[in-house]
Amino acid sequence: MQALWLENNKISLRDVPEPRKSNEALIRIRKAGICSTDLELVKGYYPYTGIPGHEFVGEVVEAEEAAWIGQRVVGEINVVCKQCEQCLNGRPTHCENRTVLGIVNRDGVFAEFTTLPITNLQRVPDSVPDEMAVFTEPLAAALEIQQQIQIKPTDRVLLIGAGRLGQLIAQTLALTGCDLRVVARHAQQQSLLRARGIRVIAEEEIQPWRWDIVVEATGSPSGFSLARQAIRPRGTLVLKSTYKRSTPQSGSVDKGELSVNFSAIVVDEINIIGSRCGPFEPALRLMEARQVDPTVLIANEFKLDEALKAFERAAETGVLKVLVEI
Amino acid sequence: MQALWLENNKISLRDVPEPRKSNEALIRIRKAGICSTDLELVKGYYPYTGIPGHEFVGEVVEAEEAAWIGQRVVGEINVVCKQCEQCLNGRPTHCENRTVLGIVNRDGVFAEFTTLPITNLQRVPDSVPDEMAVFTEPLAAALEIQQQIQIKPTDRVLLIGAGRLGQLIAQTLALTGCDLRVVARHAQQQSLLRARGIRVIAEEEIQPWRWDIVVEATGSPSGFSLARQAIRPRGTLVLKSTYKRSTPQSGSVDKGELSVNFSAIVVDEINIIGSRCGPFEPALRLMEARQVDPTVLIANEFKLDEALKAFERAAETGVLKVLVEI
Repeated sequence: MQALWLENNKISLRDVPEPRKSNEALIRIRKAGICSTDLELVKGYYPYTGIPGHEFVGEVVEAEEAAWIGQRVVGEINVVCKQCEQCLNGRPTHCENRTVLGIVNRDGVFAEFTTLPITNLQRVPDSVPDEMAVFTEPLAAALEIQQQIQIKPTDRVLLIGAGRLGQLIAQTLALTGCDLRVVARHAQQQSLLRARGIRVIAEEEIQPWRWDIVVEATGSPSGFSLARQAIRPRGTLVLKSTYKRSTPQSGSVDKGELSVNFSAIVVDEINIIGSRCGPFEPALRLMEARQVDPTVLIANEFKLDEALKAFERAAETGVLKVLVEI
Repeated sequence: MQALWLENNKISLRDVPEPRKSNEALIRIRKAGICSTDLELVKGYYPYTGIPGHEFVGEVVEAEEAAWIGQRVVGEINVVCKQCEQCLNGRPTHCENRTVLGIVNRDGVFAEFTTLPITNLQRVPDSVPDEMAVFTEPLAAALEIQQQIQIKPTDRVLLIGAGRLGQLIAQTLALTGCDLRVVARHAQQQSLLRARGIRVIAEEEIQPWRWDIVVEATGSPSGFSLARQAIRPRGTLVLKSTYKRSTPQSGSVDKGELSVNFSAIVVDEINIIGSRCGPFEPALRLMEARQVDPTVLIANEFKLDEALKAFERAAETGVLKVLVEI
């Protein structure tokens, strides 16, 4: 089959054998989305060799349980052991033996086919079209915030960053009724938010020390610094993006180190919480009910044999979601 | 009156005028405790000029309400405006206009007298002797952990650090029934814990990635690093001590900066929470009921005119609480 292949920081299209795994369903990919993590894998921020890609909607073509065959599905990206301490304590996305679709030791979805255990799959409701369903994974990641912390309708919430993930976070936070403001750098990011009645705030208008909850979704040291200034004492700072930056002096890339004043965090009793993968079912419910609409993020759609062009496009500044049709 | 005076990183005994403030009670100090913060103020980690000291038990000698005169009291160290956003939202210890006894813009308690607003005072039950009551403030700080997070009886809790504050934290955490282990470097720290049935753990025995809650009470980068290794995914890391270290290359002191891998904190969805001042009333209740006994920490007691010697003693490695009798 045709697939995108990542090796030594280079992506290329190549022919690879169709995957087959016992106890896993074979899924024909219909659409796949390019996420910032994919771009970072290509830059070499994490070691990975294989087929990248983890945001997809597809169709089951082979499965042990016949009922699944022909079903349109999305798939939880963490494939877990169900035996380790994390799995047995209700934290399967933290499985100590996990592989992660297109990210850790498991070929991903920029290909004609992929495989996943049936237990990872969710049926997509008929009313949710492919171009919406392909956003299930990042929308689930946005919902992870509310899986971790309570956002009260009266909370003042600041979201820093309105890119691919930030837009989805903004849409989900707005559903709480909270007093939400979003820092969005690019005009298109701003207009997408405004079109949904979500308020944009300029950096210089952010009152310091006043926000109950700040969500940092830029992954940049400047975003963290802004978040830290904005949060009130005893407020909660949600880190929704990993931190990486090139260190020009060495030419190398650090692994997300940030120098932070922890004494001030103690004095102000700040709560910092990291947030990663989230629940798929509520993401599908919100899309089915059209409470969120991720399709407004779509910038371009490319065929699989144009996947290199798709990655180039996705890496351009301010571009939101680029889809690959398989 | 005689008082200890801190100016330009030097402490000295001097005669100063007795304090008088309208709307504040005049308190004769009976005993005062030396805390790590006092030692850090002397080292110049924070700018402060005046009388240091914030842990005390005293007796009201002048007050607008006559009923307070003659009462034995302890005092909340944050003197607040009751008007700012923090005060009006139930966070008075974070008052934006606060002064802090012996720490920020307010003379402290290594002196014959101090003043505090009546609203800052708590009567000390007769059954709580001075040498116990003087621990109310640090014991309240230990209880702040449970004011911020829930500790379940089944939680595996690791406490790193068993110094002045660590011992009090250990005693309070042990009351939850949680599965507590304490990293204690010094033999005396260990024996005090063991005498209360609290289990000590050697650093090399700490299983990584296994602890539901880790309390870091050393304020050292190595303590933070150990805490980070120990905490499980989605666990809570409580920072109970400020971070400061000299930077040998510059000869200066940084302000608590720590370089931390925030990407890993996002991936593991760790919750980091800073913790500072706590509630006085439960601290007094626990001492009254003898559920905790801070007096086992007392290393020495000096008279006020030996206060310089008291500070020298308190700065020695492994020494727990040094009291000053006024």
